[in-house]
Amino acid sequence: MFRSITCGDLRISHIESEVVLSGWVHKVRNKGFVVWVDLRDRYGLTQLVFDQDRTSKILLEKASSLGRETVIKIKGKVIERASKNPNIPTGDIEVLVTDLDVLNESILPPFTIDDDTDGGEDIRMKYRYLDIRRKPVRDNLIFRHKVTMEVRNYLSNQGFIEVETPYLIKSTPEGARDFLVPSRMNEGQFYALPQSPQTFKQLLMVGGMDKYFQIVKCFRDEDLRADRQPEFTQIDCEMAFVEQEDILKTFEGLTKHLLKEIRGVDSGDFPRMTYDEALRLYGNDKPDIRFGMQFAELNSVCQHKDFNVFNSAELVVGIAVPGGASYTRKEIDKLIDWVKRPQVGAKGMVYVKCNEDGTYKSSVDKFYDQEDLAKWAKATNAEKGDLICVLSGNINETRAQLSALRMELAERLGLRKSNEFAPLWVVDFPLLELDEETNTYHAMHHPFTSPKQGQMELLQTNPGEVKANAYDLVLNGNEIGGGSIRIHDKQIQATMFKHLGFTPEEAKAQFGFLMDAFQYGAPPHGGIAFGLDRLVAILGGQETIRDFIAFPKNNSGRDVMIDAPSPINNEQLKELHLKLDL
Amino acid sequence: MFRSITCGDLRISHIESEVVLSGWVHKVRNKGFVVWVDLRDRYGLTQLVFDQDRTSKILLEKASSLGRETVIKIKGKVIERASKNPNIPTGDIEVLVTDLDVLNESILPPFTIDDDTDGGEDIRMKYRYLDIRRKPVRDNLIFRHKVTMEVRNYLSNQGFIEVETPYLIKSTPEGARDFLVPSRMNEGQFYALPQSPQTFKQLLMVGGMDKYFQIVKCFRDEDLRADRQPEFTQIDCEMAFVEQEDILKTFEGLTKHLLKEIRGVDSGDFPRMTYDEALRLYGNDKPDIRFGMQFAELNSVCQHKDFNVFNSAELVVGIAVPGGASYTRKEIDKLIDWVKRPQVGAKGMVYVKCNEDGTYKSSVDKFYDQEDLAKWAKATNAEKGDLICVLSGNINETRAQLSALRMELAERLGLRKSNEFAPLWVVDFPLLELDEETNTYHAMHHPFTSPKQGQMELLQTNPGEVKANAYDLVLNGNEIGGGSIRIHDKQIQATMFKHLGFTPEEAKAQFGFLMDAFQYGAPPHGGIAFGLDRLVAILGGQETIRDFIAFPKNNSGRDVMIDAPSPINNEQLKELHLKLDL
Repeated sequence: MFRSITCGDLRISHIESEVVLSGWVHKVRNKGFVVWVDLRDRYGLTQLVFDQDRTSKILLEKASSLGRETVIKIKGKVIERASKNPNIPTGDIEVLVTDLDVLNESILPPFTIDDDTDGGEDIRMKYRYLDIRRKPVRDNLIFRHKVTMEVRNYLSNQGFIEVETPYLIKSTPEGARDFLVPSRMNEGQFYALPQSPQTFKQLLMVGGMDKYFQIVKCFRDEDLRADRQPEFTQIDCEMAFVEQEDILKTFEGLTKHLLKEIRGVDSGDFPRMTYDEALRLYGNDKPDIRFGMQFAELNSVCQHKDFNVFNSAELVVGIAVPGGASYTRKEIDKLIDWVKRPQVGAKGMVYVKCNEDGTYKSSVDKFYDQEDLAKWAKATNAEKGDLICVLSGNINETRAQLSALRMELAERLGLRKSNEFAPLWVVDFPLLELDEETNTYHAMHHPFTSPKQGQMELLQTNPGEVKANAYDLVLNGNEIGGGSIRIHDKQIQATMFKHLGFTPEEAKAQFGFLMDAFQYGAPPHGGIAFGLDRLVAILGGQETIRDFIAFPKNNSGRDVMIDAPSPINNEQLKELHLKLDL
Repeated sequence: MFRSITCGDLRISHIESEVVLSGWVHKVRNKGFVVWVDLRDRYGLTQLVFDQDRTSKILLEKASSLGRETVIKIKGKVIERASKNPNIPTGDIEVLVTDLDVLNESILPPFTIDDDTDGGEDIRMKYRYLDIRRKPVRDNLIFRHKVTMEVRNYLSNQGFIEVETPYLIKSTPEGARDFLVPSRMNEGQFYALPQSPQTFKQLLMVGGMDKYFQIVKCFRDEDLRADRQPEFTQIDCEMAFVEQEDILKTFEGLTKHLLKEIRGVDSGDFPRMTYDEALRLYGNDKPDIRFGMQFAELNSVCQHKDFNVFNSAELVVGIAVPGGASYTRKEIDKLIDWVKRPQVGAKGMVYVKCNEDGTYKSSVDKFYDQEDLAKWAKATNAEKGDLICVLSGNINETRAQLSALRMELAERLGLRKSNEFAPLWVVDFPLLELDEETNTYHAMHHPFTSPKQGQMELLQTNPGEVKANAYDLVLNGNEIGGGSIRIHDKQIQATMFKHLGFTPEEAKAQFGFLMDAFQYGAPPHGGIAFGLDRLVAILGGQETIRDFIAFPKNNSGRDVMIDAPSPINNEQLKELHLKLDL
């Protein structure tokens, strides 16, 4: 037997009992006549004590020579500590050791295995198995498990069935790039790894499964931006015989349940906002509404003077920064530099200080008098002591720039609180998105998304204006889920493929099985998919999804721990009927 | 709203209520003045009624023209049926329809969508989404969901943490073939899909995670035998600070829980048997012990006469077939033909009829007298009326042949009852297996399995004799789980790789990260993996795992529904730095 109890369990009530513990040597303090060892396992730390009065000399010496991270098993008696440690649950006791077995030695770890570590990201990833010994990483993985258990039990209790869909599927060249898997048995042919189980879940609806979910790995061979992973996990869901409202209600229920069970937060009904409104008020289709600082469009109150920058702009838009009037000239100059960084891209920024005495001081006093500026203040809801920041230019870029500034200022002002949760439904997304490079439209959500009722004609005349039955669930400025009501009519689906530039032959080759399926009585259906990695990170009050993935890949898609991908041998290549073409 | 209640819910207590139902037209019976429609959804069937007295003419006509599998939504009033149908839960009522919307039409399905279908396997797989509409298939998928929920909740309650391990890993050329995934970003390099998360779960133990599980897809690019799938699902588990006994207890607990919760079966403590014993008594390392017919080795009672077939045989072994003495000469000849089939491979079979009058009649009466045969009967526990079947030859082949015969006879005798469950632990597996073609040893379980204590020396002298801390859980003649205590000592692992024919360089290239990890204090650990597809099929009282997989592949590894794998275009190939080599 390796242990009778774990290193996190012993309390004052265990005093006098004999215990067996196993774990890692976390720390050794050697005072010569007494040696304390902190023993660590998944559940906590327990202090072991060896001393010259009560411990054999051999054992004392053995204890004093223990190195960090050595794996040991001990037997001993639980005793009360002379000086208690209120910072850990086992701080009232220690174990007076009578037997000590070294189960495995350890060489010196490449970084300190402690809550705060001296190891940088790269070295911690290379030795991820040591990183996982650290409590914060381990706690994140346990937290993730807790979230997935809650998701599964909640959905299962609502009648959802988890169905496993295949991983070796068919390549569909549109959208993001597929990871491909050469088939040995079918020469010259390839499987693809799923970017999502989209078509399979729709086929399950055609099959009458009605309420489906799956927590499932998905794969995208994209050039990786920071904090994207080539393999990621989705909570994938689909329902039949539902309208958009049914889906929003169901998954609002799930999200409320998670916030309550996982974070103890009671959230009321989630607010809803159209895509157009989100862009107008926050410059962004995933607004963080933990704080205000809504956009105010100022064209009507500022385009009547001689300030040509504004007069020639498609959009003039501002926000009020709480307490910003106290910024020094230098601080404001720095803010202007910040918005002019290439990552943000503004050409400049106009500002108005709303002084405590009710007067205004702006960077455009030459063009605007106090009365004008009072109108800006009214529009932006600026109060005395606030700073109004105004950007201008074409609509899309200016909104994106002001959105970036809003987020940056909120961060600086401490308004993005990790223990506050502000969910939001964004609805009525456009059906299509214009690719400005090729001047063609592609599906904003995916080609199976249904247009809003009565908008099929608009598809011919003004495709960019067509709204879809598509929705995102936003939490604290992150899209945590997105979905749509699907097309279930074969003819509409064919029309959609045509609008997306598929020839009938291409549509048939790639999605023939789905079009076929729609001939046999496809029910109305729709669904949603949550990005689990992101959801867990946000529920955990953190930003980086890598911290919630046991074995993540780096930005080049490499697993630096196992050193993958790696070259394969010629025999393997030959079996796959392939040659390298470097 | 598409429905106020489902097609499985309405009872006599709902009479007079107004309901909305949606579903598929299962069957239409048209008597002219009255039309009955069976409406089907995931939850059941409800009878709709339209008649000339209570239904508008237009509606009656519309109903009479409904084709099978049309998707409709109806509104109506629940009324009591004149002639009740006790075979379905909704058989007491019907719904008098007042509104009928056709939501989607269906062309004629390629096979009948009913419990019994006229569709063969191939056509059902091509139109799997229609097959899933059939209750038996749907019920299997729901059953699978129920099993996985039970597994997850049980293990989670026991302190196990589900951790997702990566799917894009490193290729390890030993063992079964990997599916490979070319990397676009890392030219000429490949990921592999995991055959199991074996090394990752061991690294999680090194990382202190202690109790891990995962229900996870695994991949093997093997030539597919019947009822094998290139992608399959495992319940993968690992524990640290445990001995074999801890693991057997924990997963016996899980299996008992499943038998109880899923099938209502109380199973006592699972019997255990060594690998050697299983081979001796059943000729098989996964014996079906729902029935007896144990092997009796007859060398000592039959190798003293002039029957050279037996005298020259390494093994003479028999079983008693209950009631087999009544087989006619023709039936016995057919049995002999059966064992001589190439799939079984016996050269012949000796039999003894144990007559009701206490005499014996054998096919070798020339060589053996009644007294001899009585000894055979005693050894095989044959009773009056039984038939003793005896095979002979070299040990391994003869055991395998008699095992095949035992299973065949049990099947014919109805002894393999699908609602009986006989679990069994088989322990003390050999560490190594001789590959007779190459005359080299390879790991029977995998290269991380630890030899039994004190047997390291045997590795040098008699490797085939070394037993491992390895165990299988067998249920009704199927291996449903297998595992081992792992090596956690770097030196022993290195020795093992050497014995398996790895050069130090090869071992380092493939498993360097694991060997590295073992330097930093690896705890004693071990685990088990269950084949979920098989487990679910057996718990469901069925044989074919394909029936419990939503979208299975055929024996050539093809998904005939989506037509994968398939050719890819040259651009895709080029991006992956590959050329076809056909």
